[in-house]
Amino acid sequence: MKKIINHKEDVVEEMLQGMVKAHPEYLKRIDDSNVLVRKDAPIKGKVALVSGGGSGHEPAHGGFVGLGMLDGVAAGEVFTSPTPEQILKGIKAVDGGKGVLLIIKNYSGDVMNFEMAAELAQMEGIEVQQVIVNDDVAVEDSTFTVGRRGIAGTIFVHKIAGAAAEKGMDLDDVKRVAEKTVKNVKSMGMSLTPCVVPAVGKPSFEIGEDEMEIGLGIHGEPGIRKEKIKPAREIANILLSNILEDMKLEKDDEVAVMVNGLGGTPLMELYILNREVHNLLNEKGIKIYKTMVGEYMTSLEMAGSSISVLKLDVELKQLLDAKADTPAFRIL
Amino acid sequence: MKKIINHKEDVVEEMLQGMVKAHPEYLKRIDDSNVLVRKDAPIKGKVALVSGGGSGHEPAHGGFVGLGMLDGVAAGEVFTSPTPEQILKGIKAVDGGKGVLLIIKNYSGDVMNFEMAAELAQMEGIEVQQVIVNDDVAVEDSTFTVGRRGIAGTIFVHKIAGAAAEKGMDLDDVKRVAEKTVKNVKSMGMSLTPCVVPAVGKPSFEIGEDEMEIGLGIHGEPGIRKEKIKPAREIANILLSNILEDMKLEKDDEVAVMVNGLGGTPLMELYILNREVHNLLNEKGIKIYKTMVGEYMTSLEMAGSSISVLKLDVELKQLLDAKADTPAFRIL
Repeated sequence: MKKIINHKEDVVEEMLQGMVKAHPEYLKRIDDSNVLVRKDAPIKGKVALVSGGGSGHEPAHGGFVGLGMLDGVAAGEVFTSPTPEQILKGIKAVDGGKGVLLIIKNYSGDVMNFEMAAELAQMEGIEVQQVIVNDDVAVEDSTFTVGRRGIAGTIFVHKIAGAAAEKGMDLDDVKRVAEKTVKNVKSMGMSLTPCVVPAVGKPSFEIGEDEMEIGLGIHGEPGIRKEKIKPAREIANILLSNILEDMKLEKDDEVAVMVNGLGGTPLMELYILNREVHNLLNEKGIKIYKTMVGEYMTSLEMAGSSISVLKLDVELKQLLDAKADTPAFRIL
Repeated sequence: MKKIINHKEDVVEEMLQGMVKAHPEYLKRIDDSNVLVRKDAPIKGKVALVSGGGSGHEPAHGGFVGLGMLDGVAAGEVFTSPTPEQILKGIKAVDGGKGVLLIIKNYSGDVMNFEMAAELAQMEGIEVQQVIVNDDVAVEDSTFTVGRRGIAGTIFVHKIAGAAAEKGMDLDDVKRVAEKTVKNVKSMGMSLTPCVVPAVGKPSFEIGEDEMEIGLGIHGEPGIRKEKIKPAREIANILLSNILEDMKLEKDDEVAVMVNGLGGTPLMELYILNREVHNLLNEKGIKIYKTMVGEYMTSLEMAGSSISVLKLDVELKQLLDAKADTPAFRIL
């Protein structure tokens, strides 16, 4: 296991410390917790957004805490849901009196713990709603999940719901645009290498020197199949075909595209993949309104990429373009 | 070689196309060239900044083209200097009548080609000055370089000189702050894995499963020595000790810190390393004014990190904080 760490048991604690030291202008940590919140939280009179999940997906989710995106996140151990108690601390730390929306990636552990936290918060008189993101079209039920998994498309939900909350929308309206985003975003990924969970110390799956895994999950869960490595053009085609089959886009529809790196793949390759995604969408007459290329939702040091496509309308475009200021995502 | 590419000969061309497709609001490409410039270039009455170098260091340098940073970059083949002709095209495309400053990383090929381009531009009546960045304290002369190499500290020069130019400083003054930044910034890196240049198809160096390479260059050039992998705390100490020995910082001096990923190392590890850097600098009474953690100057998919420390004064702090809007770096 080749990693820049100290003790394998301390990676989440030390990472959280390193994040707050890196971004004191954005983040503060709630005492005795793995909860990071906006430095100016709670913000009175604004709907608050809380997300989180297992660690190992950085910059998700702490990197998206700030103006126009999330108010707080709870970080679990690597690839492990935070506890209801941690999530509750996050909810209470950011509640500004207008209610809290939870943005949950669809994994059984996350859903259970976030829902339990929501119930506990409601018992304390905080209004809590939730959306569950299930953008991964690769598989229906899988290792840790009933239904489709939540992957990089979640970042679009952070951005759009965050902009809605910042704009002053009430909880029902913020939830409405978040649900519209969930409904409109589809993703699928592939990998060239597995990743190594520090506490486990060995790769999450086996893969040959000339193979790629199609449709894997962000916790190293198996995908649909292994194939011989193909050129970027064919990789884009495999992923996009599955995504588009599910979306029923029409000519002249407008979309946002995310080409997301899984941690070990350099920007050069993501840009090459992005070229193929643009060419394929252009051939179909689909208009690309905005493109994001980079690492948004990773799986430790896994090499690979996911593609997400979000169908836009006038409202979503405005919210996507709105100002954002967080450690990992900024729009002036 | 596990990469998301098409043909190995096309990686730079296809990457540049993918970058422009991803960031049309920031970048335009000059016809028949590997030159990317600000969409609004040339900007009349502003000193223009041109940088570039071999590809494979993304987001450097095209990712830093935009408001408050670079006006244009010339991209060479992977780890290979752009030609004087390409650089000249960049200079001509961004010249707004107030002169052009070239920001050159210290590699023999880059220095020769950028200087030749400067001479050619001057013959065409464009005022051109240059600064050479040599922040790497690891080695004096090395494989491709006489003197110290230029690595991730170069991004601080882009940011600070870019802010100076945006503010309306004249060419001499922009050059003055760029030179002050070069004088004040020191860096050093380490790696856990080599990288594979696509056209070569095999790793740039050999390294054992339990080894790290200290002081390597960003083109896979050998470093000072191989060692057994050490905890993050000791890695930070090795790199920082070499950097600080060279800087003669005193208690209460203020610095900016960059913990830069080399391409294959995930943010989790960079944040853990950042924690150690902060702790070590705090112990010495050195004040950290600003921290940057992420991938700024990479070496393809190499796993590893470099640390850069920039000594600040009032002027450098103001310029570092100034607004910037580029694909890879934004400050609101």
